[in-house]
Amino acid sequence: MSSSQTPNVSKVVLAYSGGLDTSVIVKWLQETYHCEVVTFTADIGQGEEVEPARAKAEALGIKEIFIDDLREEFVRDFVFPMFRANTLYEGEYLLGTSIARPLIAKRLIEIANQTGADAISHGATGKGNDQVRFELGAYALKPGIQVIAPWREWELSSRETLMAYCEQHNIPVDFAGGKKKSPYSMDANLLHISYEGGNLEDPWCEADDDMYRWSVSPEAAPDTPTYVELTYARGDIVAIDGQSMTPAAVLAELNRLGGANGIGRLDIVENRYVGMKSRGVYETPGGTIMLKAHRGIESLTLDREVAHLKDQLMPKYAELIYNGYWWSPERKMLQAAIDESQQVVNGEVRLKLYKGAVTVVGRRSADSLFDEKIATFEDDAGAYHQKDAEGFIKLNALRMRIAAGKGRNLL
Amino acid sequence: MSSSQTPNVSKVVLAYSGGLDTSVIVKWLQETYHCEVVTFTADIGQGEEVEPARAKAEALGIKEIFIDDLREEFVRDFVFPMFRANTLYEGEYLLGTSIARPLIAKRLIEIANQTGADAISHGATGKGNDQVRFELGAYALKPGIQVIAPWREWELSSRETLMAYCEQHNIPVDFAGGKKKSPYSMDANLLHISYEGGNLEDPWCEADDDMYRWSVSPEAAPDTPTYVELTYARGDIVAIDGQSMTPAAVLAELNRLGGANGIGRLDIVENRYVGMKSRGVYETPGGTIMLKAHRGIESLTLDREVAHLKDQLMPKYAELIYNGYWWSPERKMLQAAIDESQQVVNGEVRLKLYKGAVTVVGRRSADSLFDEKIATFEDDAGAYHQKDAEGFIKLNALRMRIAAGKGRNLL
Amino acid sequence: MSSSQTPNVSKVVLAYSGGLDTSVIVKWLQETYHCEVVTFTADIGQGEEVEPARAKAEALGIKEIFIDDLREEFVRDFVFPMFRANTLYEGEYLLGTSIARPLIAKRLIEIANQTGADAISHGATGKGNDQVRFELGAYALKPGIQVIAPWREWELSSRETLMAYCEQHNIPVDFAGGKKKSPYSMDANLLHISYEGGNLEDPWCEADDDMYRWSVSPEAAPDTPTYVELTYARGDIVAIDGQSMTPAAVLAELNRLGGANGIGRLDIVENRYVGMKSRGVYETPGGTIMLKAHRGIESLTLDREVAHLKDQLMPKYAELIYNGYWWSPERKMLQAAIDESQQVVNGEVRLKLYKGAVTVVGRRSADSLFDEKIATFEDDAGAYHQKDAEGFIKLNALRMRIAAGKGRNLL
Amino acid sequence: MSSSQTPNVSKVVLAYSGGLDTSVIVKWLQETYHCEVVTFTADIGQGEEVEPARAKAEALGIKEIFIDDLREEFVRDFVFPMFRANTLYEGEYLLGTSIARPLIAKRLIEIANQTGADAISHGATGKGNDQVRFELGAYALKPGIQVIAPWREWELSSRETLMAYCEQHNIPVDFAGGKKKSPYSMDANLLHISYEGGNLEDPWCEADDDMYRWSVSPEAAPDTPTYVELTYARGDIVAIDGQSMTPAAVLAELNRLGGANGIGRLDIVENRYVGMKSRGVYETPGGTIMLKAHRGIESLTLDREVAHLKDQLMPKYAELIYNGYWWSPERKMLQAAIDESQQVVNGEVRLKLYKGAVTVVGRRSADSLFDEKIATFEDDAGAYHQKDAEGFIKLNALRMRIAAGKGRNLL
Repeated sequence: MSSSQTPNVSKVVLAYSGGLDTSVIVKWLQETYHCEVVTFTADIGQGEEVEPARAKAEALGIKEIFIDDLREEFVRDFVFPMFRANTLYEGEYLLGTSIARPLIAKRLIEIANQTGADAISHGATGKGNDQVRFELGAYALKPGIQVIAPWREWELSSRETLMAYCEQHNIPVDFAGGKKKSPYSMDANLLHISYEGGNLEDPWCEADDDMYRWSVSPEAAPDTPTYVELTYARGDIVAIDGQSMTPAAVLAELNRLGGANGIGRLDIVENRYVGMKSRGVYETPGGTIMLKAHRGIESLTLDREVAHLKDQLMPKYAELIYNGYWWSPERKMLQAAIDESQQVVNGEVRLKLYKGAVTVVGRRSADSLFDEKIATFEDDAGAYHQKDAEGFIKLNALRMRIAAGKGRNLL
Repeated sequence: MSSSQTPNVSKVVLAYSGGLDTSVIVKWLQETYHCEVVTFTADIGQGEEVEPARAKAEALGIKEIFIDDLREEFVRDFVFPMFRANTLYEGEYLLGTSIARPLIAKRLIEIANQTGADAISHGATGKGNDQVRFELGAYALKPGIQVIAPWREWELSSRETLMAYCEQHNIPVDFAGGKKKSPYSMDANLLHISYEGGNLEDPWCEADDDMYRWSVSPEAAPDTPTYVELTYARGDIVAIDGQSMTPAAVLAELNRLGGANGIGRLDIVENRYVGMKSRGVYETPGGTIMLKAHRGIESLTLDREVAHLKDQLMPKYAELIYNGYWWSPERKMLQAAIDESQQVVNGEVRLKLYKGAVTVVGRRSADSLFDEKIATFEDDAGAYHQKDAEGFIKLNALRMRIAAGKGRNLL
Repeated sequence: MSSSQTPNVSKVVLAYSGGLDTSVIVKWLQETYHCEVVTFTADIGQGEEVEPARAKAEALGIKEIFIDDLREEFVRDFVFPMFRANTLYEGEYLLGTSIARPLIAKRLIEIANQTGADAISHGATGKGNDQVRFELGAYALKPGIQVIAPWREWELSSRETLMAYCEQHNIPVDFAGGKKKSPYSMDANLLHISYEGGNLEDPWCEADDDMYRWSVSPEAAPDTPTYVELTYARGDIVAIDGQSMTPAAVLAELNRLGGANGIGRLDIVENRYVGMKSRGVYETPGGTIMLKAHRGIESLTLDREVAHLKDQLMPKYAELIYNGYWWSPERKMLQAAIDESQQVVNGEVRLKLYKGAVTVVGRRSADSLFDEKIATFEDDAGAYHQKDAEGFIKLNALRMRIAAGKGRNLL
Repeated sequence: MSSSQTPNVSKVVLAYSGGLDTSVIVKWLQETYHCEVVTFTADIGQGEEVEPARAKAEALGIKEIFIDDLREEFVRDFVFPMFRANTLYEGEYLLGTSIARPLIAKRLIEIANQTGADAISHGATGKGNDQVRFELGAYALKPGIQVIAPWREWELSSRETLMAYCEQHNIPVDFAGGKKKSPYSMDANLLHISYEGGNLEDPWCEADDDMYRWSVSPEAAPDTPTYVELTYARGDIVAIDGQSMTPAAVLAELNRLGGANGIGRLDIVENRYVGMKSRGVYETPGGTIMLKAHRGIESLTLDREVAHLKDQLMPKYAELIYNGYWWSPERKMLQAAIDESQQVVNGEVRLKLYKGAVTVVGRRSADSLFDEKIATFEDDAGAYHQKDAEGFIKLNALRMRIAAGKGRNLL
């Protein structure tokens, strides 16, 4: 879209949830741009039926309606590659929202190509990260695409004006669904559910326990631990307790196990790409287990320097994903390095899940680099020469000895 | 020490625990090097009386005996500076052993200077990291010092030969203390206790619950959570629940609170600097709380780019400490950057401790950069112009749009 | 400035060169914003008189006129700190324009504070990096300041419309100066002169030799080399050929020496922060010498790991300066580390300047870490034990030997 | 080799130059280890005939003699991949020696496998980097191999004792070759020639001009510049002035061109991996041209963030190669990222060579990301919206504005 005037748009693909806000957007796009609207609704594991969106779209006069089940693609091509890097944003956040956006952006563009649309649209606000993620992806994949971000354009910035718009345009408010409106701004997919706004806007205020949807509280979790065994192949989980599963099934099952044991709640203040701090609370049961387990299997199979290099690259990689640069050449470059490292990340990890905590209690692998003969505290029968350590230390110390000998003082 | 022959040593300062092994070393040094031995025993919070080491040393004929309480120095000058960086080795390990070694090295050299000794000695083996940490520190602080590492030199490599040596030299075996000999190799200080060896040498084998000394198991922890409030000044904790405390008192109290709630157990396979993998289990109750809390207060007070830069530097900083380079110019250089960032890390963090998990539930600060007016989901009265986001995204996307326009394909 | 409407501005401080463009801006500000204009003109070594700007400003009706000689501050507080890091953007560019902008931004804000102005303005276009550098600095130092960037707002985007505006408003065109208008867009200060535009917009086209202003061509330089000796204290040059000089005098003299020997021409394609590539040609005679010399003195005095850490941090530091983040907490954090490293960077470097090339031919220092006794190929009388190397190699190889022993293949 | 006693060795592969030192090693190995010796002599472009080594080896009683021309493999699989990263060690050194060692190590192991040898041997001293590079490579590729490093073992540490050994064992001293013995320790291959020792051991002393072998001095170079055009495909040079060439032919031709124009001399103090500083002088005519040219073609074709990421990774990559870790999983991991970036590095670079300086004067590519329509200073017909810059700057400044608004002071 041009910066200064309303552009000519003939057809726009909208990321349509079926909810009230995006239903208003349909109408607003039709009115404001006098264009055809194509809706796209995806199941990425948010836990709500997507099929009802069809009837709602039809009621709004939409002719081209796309409803896709993207759960396997989401986990296989986005979640799993990200977890290969032990990715954490700002030391804490598992990037549950961030990693879903590039998939949506890709599908929006694919549908635009297929339907001959010249624009895409989404329901993200002008204050958040999601607008950036959608739009960077769209521009990177189709540079001439126009982007319409209604929340940055329209005047419907309060709930009241939005409701008035609905009444005026005969948009049934039950589009919002039968559920009581949550006081929080939420986002869900197979990796996580997030909560922002409401009383969370005071970072000193503890989140209410009844806010959470996917996990029981640690206090309410079972009094006996659950043990689970994960099988890795090339850095990805391929089986749980010996049973092979697809990527989406793996994540769904780990969500179930984690949620039942009170695992994966996170309460943080994070730094948005647009420049402000915000407070977010997340439930990521399966992801929390996966991060711990992946470090466990890597600890046995990865070379030390490869592991350290990965740790040094990770914050940058996490930042790229958080900021919306999944579809960028620098992310691809880092992914090439990360994926190269994962060929040997095979084996099993055994975990204990108990009242909010996940602990690695065992790991084994045919690709293990752990060498009992050398590591042992017992007699190693000559596998390791302790005398070698003297030269090792002497030469590592040499530069500092020379410096100290010339009067440098480190105290 | 020269690499090829027994050097001339007239006086050696030994890091002496009062236990059997270092008592044997006293005798062995006297016999092998015909030198005077100075013993140095430090209280760094390992939880055992250090005064009894005096009588034992005297019984071995030692004339110069140093017994120091280094707990405050340990926490103030080593533990706290390290925690300012949110330091984790290999994503998991809080460096409890690593961070104590440079203090011991420093005192060994100070005592060598004071007593005119020309050598130091320690009881670390030739397979581990501690020899490196002691010796790199010693060489960096006094380049001409000789280092005697008996475990790399002598033939007493098995328990049997060691016992035979004791008998032969009238070293009372009760020097080992009245406690039943643990099957594990252990190391303790105010930050942590570590366990290696025994059945832990199989990384698939879960640690026995009765191995742990400082913490109850999560299962045995109280059924109701404990809440605690920490006050930070310049990145360090200065009060708990509003009560000012010294650094060592802070850590001791957090160990008590954490241990009572089953917090801080960690079971990992780690990469040693000498080149092998080893399995270690750690209890770090207070440190686990401190890491989480420090991230909490930083999340509110640190600039985003400073926080991200710290995250990128941290793995290198952790590696330096793990590998024994505390007393190095590169660690000082990194510390200068880290400390520069901490001037604004002031405020309070509220935490929930429950059955092995520690959660930040609130944070507040006079130095907060959280701006409710801007972050709010409600109307912000013009504090933030959503329209700005369009230009922000457009220019951030420009390089990728140009590339895509010229045919680059990111899929 | 608000994004959507003309803000209320009562007084604006303009970075005023005295040239035609900024003179037009004076008039345009007065007309468009009906506000008072304060002009600020700085001598940062661009090689043109600044005093004539006074009469021109007076002729435009300006009452508050600031004309400052900032050359010493520029070199001392901006150029020298940057050179401590061996800073190069994209491996080539010495950041001559970038490093001057934060000083201008700082003075604009100081003058705004002093005169009670509520806005600043500048003559940078909307396509370049300089607008970003000016404005990021201004916002960081005075968050409520308004910024007016005429080139992003007005309609005078071509030379013709600009000239028409002059005629219409009686702005004498000789404000452009008597010099023939260069076909290039140029920027000069004590560190460099830059050229963009014109036939340089074709990256395959070689720059004309008569474009250059500060340096003779290598072909025209003397047939005998010039030798020069620089004295460093804490990483900064304090004397040339034994003669103490102020920072600005150092840089002026090195520009003279370099320019006379054809040194410091650079022709590159660079990546702008706003997302496009541009072709720039630079003359940086003194800076080119300083970079080479600083590496020379560091090579003798810096610890290896400190030097390597600096090299790893440098690209980020360069990027910060290029992108306009001098006045940021992350730049300060990096500077703290860099400056910490420079305490020992003292001594002399001897250089050969010849027909475009600068070569270090000698370096010496009381803080040298070069140890002839150890480095010698001759007998070192036991200063270094070659046997130590065996253990050093063995343990450094251990992780790879274990891996290969377990079947890993690196070929 | 065991650290403490002479190991049992039945057959050893020696990196044999045919010179005096390695001829002495042949004899010494036969005598000391009573083992069979296999010699391996490689042409890696050092500029001396390798075939004469055959007769010398035969005269020493060697039965298995390997003489290989490795020039193409050297440039194709080692030099070119390294140059894709714009690799410089400590900001200056093109790693000419370092990059040849892993190839030698690989061939030593291949020959050991082929001949059933259980050990390798080399003529590198115990003070340098080359021993590390040979041995790390050997251990990584064949973990059970024994390594014999005579210079670390024998007593022949002075020229006199060596000569006495020759006389005693009837080793003809003319093995040293007819050439006058250089006062420098030298190493040559197709990428460079290096000089150490002699009067270079004083870092203040300028190298004598008659030391250099491959390049004329800049003063003696032609008075008119030479222009050359290089063609790149996927980051490697495939043609010079339009003529396709093999990798080794490319480097040989660039050496010729560079040497004739006085290009590629470098005089530095560098930090060895074994802990000391040393002074080295290098001639790298072709490599110096290649570095400059590769940056030139990348500047046009690489995405900005990819380029910056490469710059941040480069120092680590250079350190790995310098320290001898070519055959390591972390080098492979970095190489995967680097190679991923090079798919688009195609096109032509035009260079000017003149009296020691190499300058890029033009670059063009079908994969160029330079967009004249956007970069132009002239009217761009709406290709770029200058207004977008305002939002870009505003949001990039937001975190600092909030901070300043809350009282943070960056001055």
